[in-house]
Amino acid sequence: MTLHVYLSGEIHTDWREQIIEGSQGLDVIFSAPVTDHAASDDCGVAILGEEPNKFWHDHKGAMVNAIRTRKGLEEADVVVVRFGEKYKQWNAAFDAGYAAALGKSIIVLNPPEHQHALKEVHAAALAVAEEPRQVVEILRYVLTGTLPG
Amino acid sequence: MTLHVYLSGEIHTDWREQIIEGSQGLDVIFSAPVTDHAASDDCGVAILGEEPNKFWHDHKGAMVNAIRTRKGLEEADVVVVRFGEKYKQWNAAFDAGYAAALGKSIIVLNPPEHQHALKEVHAAALAVAEEPRQVVEILRYVLTGTLPG
Amino acid sequence: MTLHVYLSGEIHTDWREQIIEGSQGLDVIFSAPVTDHAASDDCGVAILGEEPNKFWHDHKGAMVNAIRTRKGLEEADVVVVRFGEKYKQWNAAFDAGYAAALGKSIIVLNPPEHQHALKEVHAAALAVAEEPRQVVEILRYVLTGTLPG
Amino acid sequence: MTLHVYLSGEIHTDWREQIIEGSQGLDVIFSAPVTDHAASDDCGVAILGEEPNKFWHDHKGAMVNAIRTRKGLEEADVVVVRFGEKYKQWNAAFDAGYAAALGKSIIVLNPPEHQHALKEVHAAALAVAEEPRQVVEILRYVLTGTLPG
Amino acid sequence: MTLHVYLSGEIHTDWREQIIEGSQGLDVIFSAPVTDHAASDDCGVAILGEEPNKFWHDHKGAMVNAIRTRKGLEEADVVVVRFGEKYKQWNAAFDAGYAAALGKSIIVLNPPEHQHALKEVHAAALAVAEEPRQVVEILRYVLTGTLPG
Amino acid sequence: MTLHVYLSGEIHTDWREQIIEGSQGLDVIFSAPVTDHAASDDCGVAILGEEPNKFWHDHKGAMVNAIRTRKGLEEADVVVVRFGEKYKQWNAAFDAGYAAALGKSIIVLNPPEHQHALKEVHAAALAVAEEPRQVVEILRYVLTGTLPG
Amino acid sequence: MTLHVYLSGEIHTDWREQIIEGSQGLDVIFSAPVTDHAASDDCGVAILGEEPNKFWHDHKGAMVNAIRTRKGLEEADVVVVRFGEKYKQWNAAFDAGYAAALGKSIIVLNPPEHQHALKEVHAAALAVAEEPRQVVEILRYVLTGTLPG
Amino acid sequence: MTLHVYLSGEIHTDWREQIIEGSQGLDVIFSAPVTDHAASDDCGVAILGEEPNKFWHDHKGAMVNAIRTRKGLEEADVVVVRFGEKYKQWNAAFDAGYAAALGKSIIVLNPPEHQHALKEVHAAALAVAEEPRQVVEILRYVLTGTLPG
Repeated sequence: MTLHVYLSGEIHTDWREQIIEGSQGLDVIFSAPVTDHAASDDCGVAILGEEPNKFWHDHKGAMVNAIRTRKGLEEADVVVVRFGEKYKQWNAAFDAGYAAALGKSIIVLNPPEHQHALKEVHAAALAVAEEPRQVVEILRYVLTGTLPG
Repeated sequence: MTLHVYLSGEIHTDWREQIIEGSQGLDVIFSAPVTDHAASDDCGVAILGEEPNKFWHDHKGAMVNAIRTRKGLEEADVVVVRFGEKYKQWNAAFDAGYAAALGKSIIVLNPPEHQHALKEVHAAALAVAEEPRQVVEILRYVLTGTLPG
Repeated sequence: MTLHVYLSGEIHTDWREQIIEGSQGLDVIFSAPVTDHAASDDCGVAILGEEPNKFWHDHKGAMVNAIRTRKGLEEADVVVVRFGEKYKQWNAAFDAGYAAALGKSIIVLNPPEHQHALKEVHAAALAVAEEPRQVVEILRYVLTGTLPG
Repeated sequence: MTLHVYLSGEIHTDWREQIIEGSQGLDVIFSAPVTDHAASDDCGVAILGEEPNKFWHDHKGAMVNAIRTRKGLEEADVVVVRFGEKYKQWNAAFDAGYAAALGKSIIVLNPPEHQHALKEVHAAALAVAEEPRQVVEILRYVLTGTLPG
Repeated sequence: MTLHVYLSGEIHTDWREQIIEGSQGLDVIFSAPVTDHAASDDCGVAILGEEPNKFWHDHKGAMVNAIRTRKGLEEADVVVVRFGEKYKQWNAAFDAGYAAALGKSIIVLNPPEHQHALKEVHAAALAVAEEPRQVVEILRYVLTGTLPG
Repeated sequence: MTLHVYLSGEIHTDWREQIIEGSQGLDVIFSAPVTDHAASDDCGVAILGEEPNKFWHDHKGAMVNAIRTRKGLEEADVVVVRFGEKYKQWNAAFDAGYAAALGKSIIVLNPPEHQHALKEVHAAALAVAEEPRQVVEILRYVLTGTLPG
Repeated sequence: MTLHVYLSGEIHTDWREQIIEGSQGLDVIFSAPVTDHAASDDCGVAILGEEPNKFWHDHKGAMVNAIRTRKGLEEADVVVVRFGEKYKQWNAAFDAGYAAALGKSIIVLNPPEHQHALKEVHAAALAVAEEPRQVVEILRYVLTGTLPG
Repeated sequence: MTLHVYLSGEIHTDWREQIIEGSQGLDVIFSAPVTDHAASDDCGVAILGEEPNKFWHDHKGAMVNAIRTRKGLEEADVVVVRFGEKYKQWNAAFDAGYAAALGKSIIVLNPPEHQHALKEVHAAALAVAEEPRQVVEILRYVLTGTLPG
């Protein structure tokens, strides 16, 4: 059994690397959005032409990024959605809703202070974790039946 | 043609009332989440029993609210998602993602300062508005072909 | 908003009547399997001809009953699955699984002693109740936003 | 033609091993739930944190197990559901219902004394067997056209 | 509960009338193909222009008839497929296959001498009847729980 | 049987009126795009704000019009796609492709000189007509079994 | 591009072998039902136990065969349905209907005398051929763009 | 991550070759219609027999070509639709509509003078490009996160 896992959300810490490294040896194929913030913001205009209006600048980029995001979400068995401590992070919640409607298994990863604000997202999840290590432990258990410790 | 319109998101201003009132005479059936904040937070424990742990208190409520939210989203032709000026509002972005995966027509309603943070949500929308009046004008145009003014 | 509610499971107590009566005045359309035990067991052979072998006797009946069950489950917004105190009740758990795969909102109604054995069914539910009254309260809240008391 | 076969249900006898061993040389990929009873019961709290309340202890575990179960069911061509002689086994019947709604080919494996109680599950099955050997014979026939003996 | 029932197949006897008349008072909406044989054969060329080649003459008609057939099959809860004593009746078996793939409840109505030749169609059915009266009895039982006699 | 019919395509002649008038007395519910050319072109900017760039001017309008078009296409049983004598009419072909992927019954209405260029669209249609009168005759036949003349 | 092709229908002539042999070198994966007539008729009782009643004898076999048939049909890109000169062949027409509802590309292969009786099946096909050689030519053209001769 | 990309539309220039060559080293699998114009027009009659009527000549060919087109569209993650400077190109717009209804990521490639006529097609696209080079840049960015320059 190969698990396809999409790593959605926060791009400012190394949580993806922790999960990927921790999962070495497991039969997991990871995917993720482009995490280079500048490239992600500017991809639309860099390729398809400048826009004087910020809305369309952003729009063109978000549309191009959606090609990758949808592919990742639709192919995933498990979608891990990470909420960091800062920013609005509406794209993360959007991905969670998209994954929920597709019937994906969702793992939410967030600091405890966001608990109340995330309750609707948690209601669609199969696991709520605080640490990347716990995500790795879930993947290991799901694939091998082995618990930590 | 009857349009089913689900009004998702912010519950602290009267934007729903403005849209519903402005749409009088149009063939629209509106639905919405429970907008009584206290009832919405406590519905789970009030009906199904107290929980000492805040996480499960919230979880039980969010699950019960999901019965209404999913029904509203799945029956809708148009989902209007309102982002207000405050709070995390991850439930709004979650609903937008859910609606997008179902192929619903999405109208996002937000103040201009949220533009950049909402770019992924906007990329899934057919219209981005700033005022409830514009949502009414869209509904009127879609149903009758009449433009404002 | 009209809720279609399918009442699946145990047929030896009056829980369905309690829920239907308690929901008077709410915009709910209920459906349910045939609850006449003898008719339900014998419908296949009574209509389509006797079977000397008990397996096929039962099979013919279960197939005819499936016409009604599938219609009820597929049209439902909410599926209430009641587990009583006795019997195997595999049909109830089967309906719960069927409803889960269709993405229906599930409410499980069971006595507390069944909790551990029902944990996989509960994991697919949006609410777990012990009393028919609680189901009514959920339906009322979902439709009107009103909490008990 | 490769058959994906999910082996659902009873975890106290070696029926899975019998089927897997008997199918050696056939183009079958088997999957199954975690069959370590203790790990399966405790996986949620072991990874995501203790729960004083037994309901949430079980719930967390059932949710984590659902990641594997759904993956297995959704990828399967054939779902074998085994009912043993003891216990409620509602998870097995739940899996059968889930598989039925997804249109999977279902083989039920049960001792004859459960026949009447399983008639609704049998009504969704393409084969009802009593011995693991018969499941192997079905898989061999489906893949190679060869009958036993 | 309203049942939508599509009456597919043989058009040379009055079996449809028997079922419709026998179902008076039941909450059933029947649909059926055009049963005027000449109109059914010629509808394509009569409306869309003559074809010298018999294949295209038939093709144009079959395509126009498919508008009605698909609508009837897709809206149906129950598809009754009648095989008469004569002719190839491949359209009836085609409708049965189409209904099976859509997950419809299928009732096959055929004389006993066709049993062996129809075994694959029967394998997709929830009931196999020989008389229109039995179809009425199934519909009455499914809707009201009442058995004949 | 009520047929929902969406009338897609050319907006410069009175073909829609001819079909609607000719269908009086038939159980048909028609829908169509906004056929006021100026309103259709300008609806986006009129409601959501001016755009200096013609591309975004058009884009905003096309997105708002898509709310109505998708609703009409998704609810339709039959999609009539009219190609006139002039213009690119890519929106008509787009609607035909969209309808084909949804499995709708398609009737194409075009002058004979477009035959070769429309062959891929015709390959997805159940009828190819040259006159609105023929569309009416198809609808009458599908609903009543009556042929013209 | 790899084409999955399911070869449904008549089992008394070597048409499958002709197509498979003719397609050597093309990127095609063929599947087919079990074509050993005796094994196909008896597989149910040989594995799952004797039935004195011919109906259930046939039923058990048809159900087991359905495991293979459904797998083949659901994985296919192209379904070739062969009607021979004799027998009822309702299973072939059933497979055609099943494939049509799944949106598969259908090629019908039949002698010209069956043309009128097959017109509804032809209406769902993308090609109607008389010789296995033509099916090979279609597969070659679809995969390589090369026409015969 | 492997992207499946279908290259639909204009067949008179070397845009496909430019994209395929530019994408060397990227994890992309391309597919496309048969681009030999004469073969594409005549494939139906060359394989399945002559037709004196041009409509059926074209129809037979379009149906055979649909086998390849549908396979390509349904397997694609990204559909690139190229509109050239000449001809009606309704097949390109049809493919775009088909892809849109399937939820595929669409990139439209057209000269600027077609902008207004393509606005409904653009409204369903995630990117609108003028040069094949831009399509390559999008594919490279989506797969590797690297921007040009």
